[in-house]
Amino acid sequence: MKPIPLLIGIARFFAIGSLLALGARAHAQADPLPSWNNGPAKQAIVEFVQATTTQGSPKFVPPAERIATFDQDGTLWVSHPMYAQVMYCLQRVPAVVTAKPELKNVEPFKTVLSGNREAMAKLSMKDLEKILAATLTGISVDEFNAEVKKWLAAAKDPRWKRPYTELTYLPMQEVLKYLRANGYKTFIVTGGGQDFVRVYSEQVYGIPPEQVVGTAGGTKYGYDRSGKPFLTKEPRLLLNDDNAGKPEGIHLMIGRRPFAAFGNSTGDRQMLEYAKAGDGARLAMLVLHDDAKREYAYGPALGLPDTKVGTFTQALYDQAKKQGWTVISMKSDWKRIFAFEQ
Amino acid sequence: MKPIPLLIGIARFFAIGSLLALGARAHAQADPLPSWNNGPAKQAIVEFVQATTTQGSPKFVPPAERIATFDQDGTLWVSHPMYAQVMYCLQRVPAVVTAKPELKNVEPFKTVLSGNREAMAKLSMKDLEKILAATLTGISVDEFNAEVKKWLAAAKDPRWKRPYTELTYLPMQEVLKYLRANGYKTFIVTGGGQDFVRVYSEQVYGIPPEQVVGTAGGTKYGYDRSGKPFLTKEPRLLLNDDNAGKPEGIHLMIGRRPFAAFGNSTGDRQMLEYAKAGDGARLAMLVLHDDAKREYAYGPALGLPDTKVGTFTQALYDQAKKQGWTVISMKSDWKRIFAFEQ
Repeated sequence: MKPIPLLIGIARFFAIGSLLALGARAHAQADPLPSWNNGPAKQAIVEFVQATTTQGSPKFVPPAERIATFDQDGTLWVSHPMYAQVMYCLQRVPAVVTAKPELKNVEPFKTVLSGNREAMAKLSMKDLEKILAATLTGISVDEFNAEVKKWLAAAKDPRWKRPYTELTYLPMQEVLKYLRANGYKTFIVTGGGQDFVRVYSEQVYGIPPEQVVGTAGGTKYGYDRSGKPFLTKEPRLLLNDDNAGKPEGIHLMIGRRPFAAFGNSTGDRQMLEYAKAGDGARLAMLVLHDDAKREYAYGPALGLPDTKVGTFTQALYDQAKKQGWTVISMKSDWKRIFAFEQ
Repeated sequence: MKPIPLLIGIARFFAIGSLLALGARAHAQADPLPSWNNGPAKQAIVEFVQATTTQGSPKFVPPAERIATFDQDGTLWVSHPMYAQVMYCLQRVPAVVTAKPELKNVEPFKTVLSGNREAMAKLSMKDLEKILAATLTGISVDEFNAEVKKWLAAAKDPRWKRPYTELTYLPMQEVLKYLRANGYKTFIVTGGGQDFVRVYSEQVYGIPPEQVVGTAGGTKYGYDRSGKPFLTKEPRLLLNDDNAGKPEGIHLMIGRRPFAAFGNSTGDRQMLEYAKAGDGARLAMLVLHDDAKREYAYGPALGLPDTKVGTFTQALYDQAKKQGWTVISMKSDWKRIFAFEQ
């Protein structure tokens, strides 16, 4: 072996190295939000991440403080025409009545058992609360987790005929990943049941149970016949994680003010206000369901009926404009809605 | 340049590389717990980490599930003769009375203001609760954080004449780091105030606020005169994070059963039971304060008086032996107690 070919070989090796390095750089600069159309919403996200994560930026945020919070229903996945968790509760009623036959002729259980959809649609908020309490509590934490897992594996959304866990918005999944790739800890802050969402949050959103804040009841510690300890879910509300309950829940469960917050309804108003009121760069965004074709269009801000699953009022829209929050139009800001659609 | 010297150079380069690799390996095998004497306690920790983190081990735990929980007072730092947080509350009383002069002649505030230590030592649990409620609530979260920070910077433990934040046990700091280096998420699960501990947990233990579970009250969302939102601490107990409240708090705030749990008193009993009742390798450890010279010796398990700051009963000791928990003797298991001592 002569030295010159060897040197050429070394030079080639380094050249390839440089090309690889260039490739890596190009990859790092690849669009982190490919399902978003260019526009103010996408721009707001990218500018926020750059401002808070670039060393030397006046709005730089130390990694330990990078907290982002996301509402779930209507923000990360489809909530129309009915919350998945409410579907779960309604479908659990027969099993609950089998275990407690005395409920069979008692309202609202009687109506749910009848299967009469028209009558069910007329159930009051109080009726619904009774159903939630009966179907979400009184069993052990382990039993509950197993039941929800079983239900999720079988249940399908009536329109898309797919498991609910596939009905997550691809553009929002990209935001979650983009923020995490930039050192943000992502949390779900949902009005839904904390224990319910925790069952699938890791698989669906890459968010571990300990980063899910939701409406939460107490549990009771006890022992089974063999002396083994277990926790029973109790109908004792600890945190109603909606409206003002969202910042209160964030304080209880996280203890820091988020730098970015995402929602889609009046229930998220206080969370966005709270995030936005902090110093430095803050990102507050609201998903507007204005895409009747690819998903749904609903709510007073669009002059459409309020469907009660994520109410977007005109007042919320006005507050967003006034306080520098960004409204995401599903119709114009999102190139794709779901991962399963091309 | 001749090829042979070049090849020798390459060979040398690789030899150095191998040496570096060997060095790195030796470093990786360096004692992760240098402040621990060899013995069953140290061995239990190392064996637990090896069993749960070695790929292919029958007791391997996926990284996402690696949760370890630590009581704070008496487990991670000194709690004798009085909890630091109680000191804080007592020393806050004058400021509270200045803000609310009507409390001046009302018990138990009158006694605290008198400075009569003998009378203060006789205050009942109910008196203490009144003091905690008055000094920990009624102000905004931001004001509270600032007050605690200010107090911690000035307050000193009467025996060591050092800030409380320096009175953490070096051997336990090593356990925290060792577990984290092996993919464990470390949580504090304290009977103390969640908001209080969160102020210094990151600086003192490397544990971020969102990984501190403690006794927690509600907050109330509101707006100041300029319309800026803020949270006020309320005297409404949400979680009494002691005894059965510990596993209940772990479920509320973490949502997973820990694989390792550390405590030092009967208040930690249920947390250790809960951790130990899970499948696979589980580590449950109790710090026994049996070192009158270097720290303190107290509690019924040692035939000594109960000081009410981490009661270690004979029944707890018996349960530990029966259920395979490991009792850590400060006196014989710990080579050093504090980082500031050589």
